[in-house]
Amino acid sequence: MAEKISYIGVDLGGTNLKTALVSRHGKIIQTRTASVRLDRGAESIANELLAECRTLVASGKKQGLEVCAAGLGVAGKIDRASGTVVFSPNLPMLDGYPLAKNLQDNLGIPVFMENDANVFGLGEGFAGAAKGVRNWVGITLGTGTGGCLFLGGKLWEGDRLGFSAEIGHMIVEPEGPLCPCGSKGCLEAFASARALISGAKRCIASGGISENLKSMEAAGMLSARTIYDCAKQGDRTALALFDKMGWALGICLANVFSALGIRHAVIGGGVSSAWDLFIGSLETTLARNASMLGAGSAVILRSRLGDDAALIGAARRAKTESSWRRS
Amino acid sequence: MAEKISYIGVDLGGTNLKTALVSRHGKIIQTRTASVRLDRGAESIANELLAECRTLVASGKKQGLEVCAAGLGVAGKIDRASGTVVFSPNLPMLDGYPLAKNLQDNLGIPVFMENDANVFGLGEGFAGAAKGVRNWVGITLGTGTGGCLFLGGKLWEGDRLGFSAEIGHMIVEPEGPLCPCGSKGCLEAFASARALISGAKRCIASGGISENLKSMEAAGMLSARTIYDCAKQGDRTALALFDKMGWALGICLANVFSALGIRHAVIGGGVSSAWDLFIGSLETTLARNASMLGAGSAVILRSRLGDDAALIGAARRAKTESSWRRS
Repeated sequence: MAEKISYIGVDLGGTNLKTALVSRHGKIIQTRTASVRLDRGAESIANELLAECRTLVASGKKQGLEVCAAGLGVAGKIDRASGTVVFSPNLPMLDGYPLAKNLQDNLGIPVFMENDANVFGLGEGFAGAAKGVRNWVGITLGTGTGGCLFLGGKLWEGDRLGFSAEIGHMIVEPEGPLCPCGSKGCLEAFASARALISGAKRCIASGGISENLKSMEAAGMLSARTIYDCAKQGDRTALALFDKMGWALGICLANVFSALGIRHAVIGGGVSSAWDLFIGSLETTLARNASMLGAGSAVILRSRLGDDAALIGAARRAKTESSWRRS
Repeated sequence: MAEKISYIGVDLGGTNLKTALVSRHGKIIQTRTASVRLDRGAESIANELLAECRTLVASGKKQGLEVCAAGLGVAGKIDRASGTVVFSPNLPMLDGYPLAKNLQDNLGIPVFMENDANVFGLGEGFAGAAKGVRNWVGITLGTGTGGCLFLGGKLWEGDRLGFSAEIGHMIVEPEGPLCPCGSKGCLEAFASARALISGAKRCIASGGISENLKSMEAAGMLSARTIYDCAKQGDRTALALFDKMGWALGICLANVFSALGIRHAVIGGGVSSAWDLFIGSLETTLARNASMLGAGSAVILRSRLGDDAALIGAARRAKTESSWRRS
């Protein structure tokens, strides 16, 4: 019996390394998750990635599936041609490291690398919230804040400078909080897991903070999740952090919509689970600041595929790029 | 002898109505300028426009030139299909007025309407500073602040919502000065003739202002030009206004470059004559806030066609649209 074709999709963020075996129709067959050890070097991440992929290849083989290619979604500025991570604020040890080339050499199948937010977008556009929408912006709220842009139904790649749709590094408040990228007041400095934690720490340091968050910090348990739980219990400081997140997203989306004359956005990533805590201030701020867009014209969609978006999108990237290369 | 084909290009801003007879090769044959009377109604502007165009048609006829079509560049949100101005913060009396349709009916040739910044871009892209650049943003510094976007070598029209590339209404300082559009802290509220005048008036009202600017205001002579002259004479308040203009342009361009992964901009419009007074702070601010763009990668170009850009671009729009319609 001839083996059926399948692909590997990888989502490498600042916290987790997720891998999946994906059918050629874009269905997820199997997923795996490993932690990213930020204290270790690039080789360690590369080895972990190789081991995860080998496990999926072997598992596929048992099910009669041949893995033809792999797609990597990685947080940061990517040089696709050389398969190298150029600059990754959230995975600094990978700067300059040929992650895709390394995996391709060791795995023996074509490997394609893409920005993690772009693979999220490829997934949501193919089978998720943005299916059928031609012009839209995607934002992923994770450890950092990613972005992708689809114009005329295609992933927009700009001047191929190694980045595009860096929505997370658009400035929403000049002289605002410092962002890992080196600029001040970027969207990411308000709308990411790290921004929530930094914001909570700043509030604790300046006094006048709820006992709830303070004890979380003392126990080393301050995370986007625990701050969310505090907010749900009515903690005002925690609520204000999500409110500010929505405000920053509203300013940023107003700017993207004004600049591009478009009106659709899809928001995903782990922190988008806190949707009910930021969507109100997002929509109010957007309406107030997108003066050219008629009231109620903006369409803000929630990711439909969740964690699967990036995995499906990365596998899809592998499929289209490898079939392009074969033809 | 068969008459040679020519086109009319119109640039209608908040201050002047400029018209030109343009050859089919994009050369300006004759230009005319009339003042815009903001205190009169839409009919008055429409009649003035018709008279100017009739003069050019008659003048062309004498030179053996047949005018085939006209292109109107108008500051504001445009409904191309109906030839109507939807919303124009700088020409409010035109809101909802079918300016292009009116002119077409009275002139008896096809008339096409386009946003004024877009025709500026069509001109600069065809024969000016952006010739040969595929992806770029254009900004016009006039009474207000216009924008245009060229992606893949074409004018980007977004979702055809009647606006796109409204760079002037991107927010650079939330809660900053009020903009005529109703939002606060738009680029236009810092980088336009009106912003310079408002800024000078705010400084005068709050005291501690140079005698120079104060006497200009008392004489009713406060304008972008006189503020520029004061700045050139070393007036600190005037210098600070241009510095702030450069800062706002820098923040805004950083955001456009981050969002689109592009690196070229062309700046034109009357107030861009003050280039030497704002380009320094623009470039410093841009370098500090476009974290994804390598140092020195941004290319900020000065309009090469000046006032002619919009006239040539509007005529070019008329040429391409009318030949499209004929074919």
